[in-house]
Amino acid sequence: MAQKPAIPKGTRDFDPDVMARRDYIFSTIKEVFKLYGFEPIETPAMENLSTLTGKYGDEGDKLLFRILNSGDFLSDVKEPDKQSFETLGQKISEKGLRYDLTVPFARFVVQYRNEINFPFKRYQIQPVWRADRPQKGRYREFYQCDVDVVGSDALINEAELVQLVDDVFKRLNINVVTKINNRKVLAGLAEYIGKPEALIDITVAIDKLDKIGIDQVNAELSEKGLSDKAVELLQPVLFMEGSTTEKLDMLEKLIGHIAIGSKGITELRQLFTYLYNMKIAMPVELDLTLARGLNYYTGAIFEVKATDVPMGSICGGGRYDNLTGVFGMPDVSGVGISFGADRIYDVMQNLELFPDKAIQSTQIIFLNFGEKEMTYCLPFLKELRAKGFRVEIFPDAAKIKKQLRYTDQKRIPIAVMAGESEMAANQFTVKQMQSGEQITVDAETLVEKLGESLKDRL
Amino acid sequence: MAQKPAIPKGTRDFDPDVMARRDYIFSTIKEVFKLYGFEPIETPAMENLSTLTGKYGDEGDKLLFRILNSGDFLSDVKEPDKQSFETLGQKISEKGLRYDLTVPFARFVVQYRNEINFPFKRYQIQPVWRADRPQKGRYREFYQCDVDVVGSDALINEAELVQLVDDVFKRLNINVVTKINNRKVLAGLAEYIGKPEALIDITVAIDKLDKIGIDQVNAELSEKGLSDKAVELLQPVLFMEGSTTEKLDMLEKLIGHIAIGSKGITELRQLFTYLYNMKIAMPVELDLTLARGLNYYTGAIFEVKATDVPMGSICGGGRYDNLTGVFGMPDVSGVGISFGADRIYDVMQNLELFPDKAIQSTQIIFLNFGEKEMTYCLPFLKELRAKGFRVEIFPDAAKIKKQLRYTDQKRIPIAVMAGESEMAANQFTVKQMQSGEQITVDAETLVEKLGESLKDRL
Repeated sequence: MAQKPAIPKGTRDFDPDVMARRDYIFSTIKEVFKLYGFEPIETPAMENLSTLTGKYGDEGDKLLFRILNSGDFLSDVKEPDKQSFETLGQKISEKGLRYDLTVPFARFVVQYRNEINFPFKRYQIQPVWRADRPQKGRYREFYQCDVDVVGSDALINEAELVQLVDDVFKRLNINVVTKINNRKVLAGLAEYIGKPEALIDITVAIDKLDKIGIDQVNAELSEKGLSDKAVELLQPVLFMEGSTTEKLDMLEKLIGHIAIGSKGITELRQLFTYLYNMKIAMPVELDLTLARGLNYYTGAIFEVKATDVPMGSICGGGRYDNLTGVFGMPDVSGVGISFGADRIYDVMQNLELFPDKAIQSTQIIFLNFGEKEMTYCLPFLKELRAKGFRVEIFPDAAKIKKQLRYTDQKRIPIAVMAGESEMAANQFTVKQMQSGEQITVDAETLVEKLGESLKDRL
Repeated sequence: MAQKPAIPKGTRDFDPDVMARRDYIFSTIKEVFKLYGFEPIETPAMENLSTLTGKYGDEGDKLLFRILNSGDFLSDVKEPDKQSFETLGQKISEKGLRYDLTVPFARFVVQYRNEINFPFKRYQIQPVWRADRPQKGRYREFYQCDVDVVGSDALINEAELVQLVDDVFKRLNINVVTKINNRKVLAGLAEYIGKPEALIDITVAIDKLDKIGIDQVNAELSEKGLSDKAVELLQPVLFMEGSTTEKLDMLEKLIGHIAIGSKGITELRQLFTYLYNMKIAMPVELDLTLARGLNYYTGAIFEVKATDVPMGSICGGGRYDNLTGVFGMPDVSGVGISFGADRIYDVMQNLELFPDKAIQSTQIIFLNFGEKEMTYCLPFLKELRAKGFRVEIFPDAAKIKKQLRYTDQKRIPIAVMAGESEMAANQFTVKQMQSGEQITVDAETLVEKLGESLKDRL
C-alpha cells in the first residue's frame, strides 16, 4: 500500500535552496579554518555506548539515541521476568548516535595519541543527534561545527581563534560582538566572597543576568546559600563598567591577591594585548557576566552574538584542561570554539545577507526546441562547462512556456534559444530572464558574450 | 574509570590525511555536478521504519539499523509473554538509519512533489548505514554519492550523465571504461529464447560471466530451467564482438522483431549517437553481459571501471521507471548514477593519483622563538592569510627541533624563522623543508617572496 511519506519529528530535509545557503556558510567557515592551519577529521555516527554514557550528565544520557543490536537482537534475552526486563535496554543496544563532537573528538585524541602530531589543530563538521523534545529552532538532528587546538596551553591559540571568528563573520558579512571572560577570574571572585565551593551556583546565576535581571539573580544567589554580605560583595562586579583595561584594573584591586584570580587576570591581559596587536575588526569585550552553562571550561570563555538581530549566541567556546581525562589521558589542555550553523543561517536569512552568487545554481540554460536544435546546442554546453560555467539544457522539447517556468523557478539568469531561424543564420537568441531583454548573438561569439554577461551580473 | 577507547566494528575514523583525499574526491565530483546544473539535497539520517522496510528485500530489512524509541522505550510493553516478545522489536523501535540514498530520495520526491521544479536534477552525498558483517572493504557506515534526473524520460539525460562521468574521471586523472547496456534489450532476449518470465534469472546469471566464466553461466541457466535450446540461442549474444554499430545490427537481426527488444535497440542507438557527437574522451562500450544485480532498472544500465587497476565497478547506475510508486506516485521516470567514493579512493591511492596540492594543508609555518619574536611575526600571518595562503604559527616557544618535526609531519613546505638577529635586521629566514635550503629575506619583501615560492612548487 502507498504510504503518506513523512520524516521523523525534529528532523529536516534540506532542499536545494536551503542547501546552497548552508553550503555557503560551511564552505566560508572551512576556508577560514584552513587559512589558520586547521585540518578536518570525521568520526562515525555511531559510538559505543560506553564511550557516550556518563559524559553528558543524567539528562544527557536520556537524550542519547540508542541503536538496536543488529541481527537477532533478542537472542541473548531469556524469558524475561520483571527484573531482566529492566536491563533489557542495555542488553539489546550497545551503540548510540553521536550526541556532540566533543566526546568523539576526545575519544579520537586518546585512541590515536601516538600518531597525532601535537599541537593538534582540527576542525569537524558533522551532524549530531539528540532525543530532545522537538520545538521551534531545536532539532533532533543538527550539524555542529567545531574547531579546536589541543596539546598547547599557549594563549596565542585563544587569540588566533578570536581572529578566526573575526575573519569568518567578516566574510559572512555579519556584524558581531565577541564577549570574553575567564573561568579563573570567576573562581577568584567565588573565593573573594568567601564561597569558593559555590563557584558553579554563582556562575549559573550570573549567566542569567541578561535574561532575568539583577534582582532575580541576587534572589537566586541568596537561595543558593550566599550570605547578604557575599551578594553585596558581588554587586560591583555585576555592574562593572569602563574600558577593558579599567575593568581589569578594578578586578586586580578586588581579587589580585587571590592566586587563581590573579592568574585569570594575567591571562586576560595577555589575550587582550594579542587581540589589540592583531587589530581585530569586530568589538571584543570583557564580560564578567559571561559564564556559559558548561562546567567544562577552565580558562578563557568566548561568546559571539550578532549585533543587528536579536538572537542567542551564534558561536562560543573556551579553554579546557581535561578533555581526555575520562578516557585515561589526563592533562591535555585545549581551546576550541563551535559555530552554530542553524543560528548563523537564521541571522543571514533575517538580514538578507546571502549573496545572489552564493545561492545561484545553474547560470545558463539552453531551451529545447527539438532533436535537431538540441544537437546544434550541445557543443556549446560542453565549451561553456569547460570554462567553468554551470550550464544545462532542458531535456525535453516541452512547451516553451513550461521551460521558461522551470528556468524562472530555478532562478537561472540566462536562457539561450535556437530554433529553425537561429540555426539557419548560425546564431542564438540570448534572453536575460530578469529584465526580459533578448539579443541575437552569432554562434562563434556566444561563449564570449555569455561570459561577459555573467561577469556583469555577479 | 578510564576506558580503552574504540569505535564500533565496521565504522571508521578519518584522520586529516584521509580527509584531505576524500575531500578532494567529493569536491571534484560536486564541482562537475554543479557544472551540469545538478543541485544538492540532504535528508535526515533517521527515517521512519515504515519508509525503509520492505524496500530492500528480506535480506535488506535485516541489515537496517533500528533506533530505540527515546525516553522510556519500554513503557508501551506490558509483562511480555512469549508472543508479545516477538513483536517487541516493532514496539520499541520506529525509526531506522538510512540504508541508501535512493529510498529517502524517492520519499523526498513524493513528499515535496508540489514544490519540486521538474525535471529535478539533484545530487546527494551522505553516509548510509548497513548492519552487514564487517570485512575488508565493506563498512557499516559509508558515503554514497548519487546524482539523478527525475521527471524526464529523454535520453539526453543518459548521455549527459555519461559525459559527466567522463568529466569527473578526467579531472580525477583516472582512466576508465564505461559499459552500457539496456534492460529492454535483455527483456527482448529473454522473450527471444522463449523464457520472458526468466528475465531476472538470465540477467543474474549473465551478470556473473566475468567472474565465473561461460561454462558456469550456462550451467546456472540450465539449473534455472532454461532448455538446452534456449541456452544455445543465448550463446551468440554472450560472445558478441565487433563495434557498437555491428553489435546493434546483429541484435537488430536477432530481436528486432520483438517490441521491447526493438525499443531497447533504438534507445541504445540514440544514446550512442549523442555520445559520439559529444566526443566523450573515455572508451564507452556496449556490453550485453552487463546486467547489475538490481531489478530496478528499466532502460539504460551503466557501469564504470578503472582500467589501470583491478577493482570492481567504481560508478554505476541506470534508468528506472518506478522510483516513487511505492510511495503512491506512479510513472515517474528517472535516471541516475552513483559514485563509489571508497573504491575511487582506493584506485587513486593505488595509482598515486592524489596531487600534492590537494592533500596539503598548511603552506607556511612561522616557528616560535619566544614572545617578542612571535609579536614580530603576527602581522605577516595576517597579511598572508588575507592573500589566501594557509599559514600558522607554532603556538609554544618549544625546542626548534620539536617545531621542525611538527612541520615535517604536517608536510608544511615552508618554515619561516625570526630570532633576535633577524628581528634586529628586520629580516626573516625562510626554509624550504624539502630541500633544506635557507635564505634570508627582508621583512618588506617576505609576503611577495613566499607567494613566488609557493607558486613555483604548486
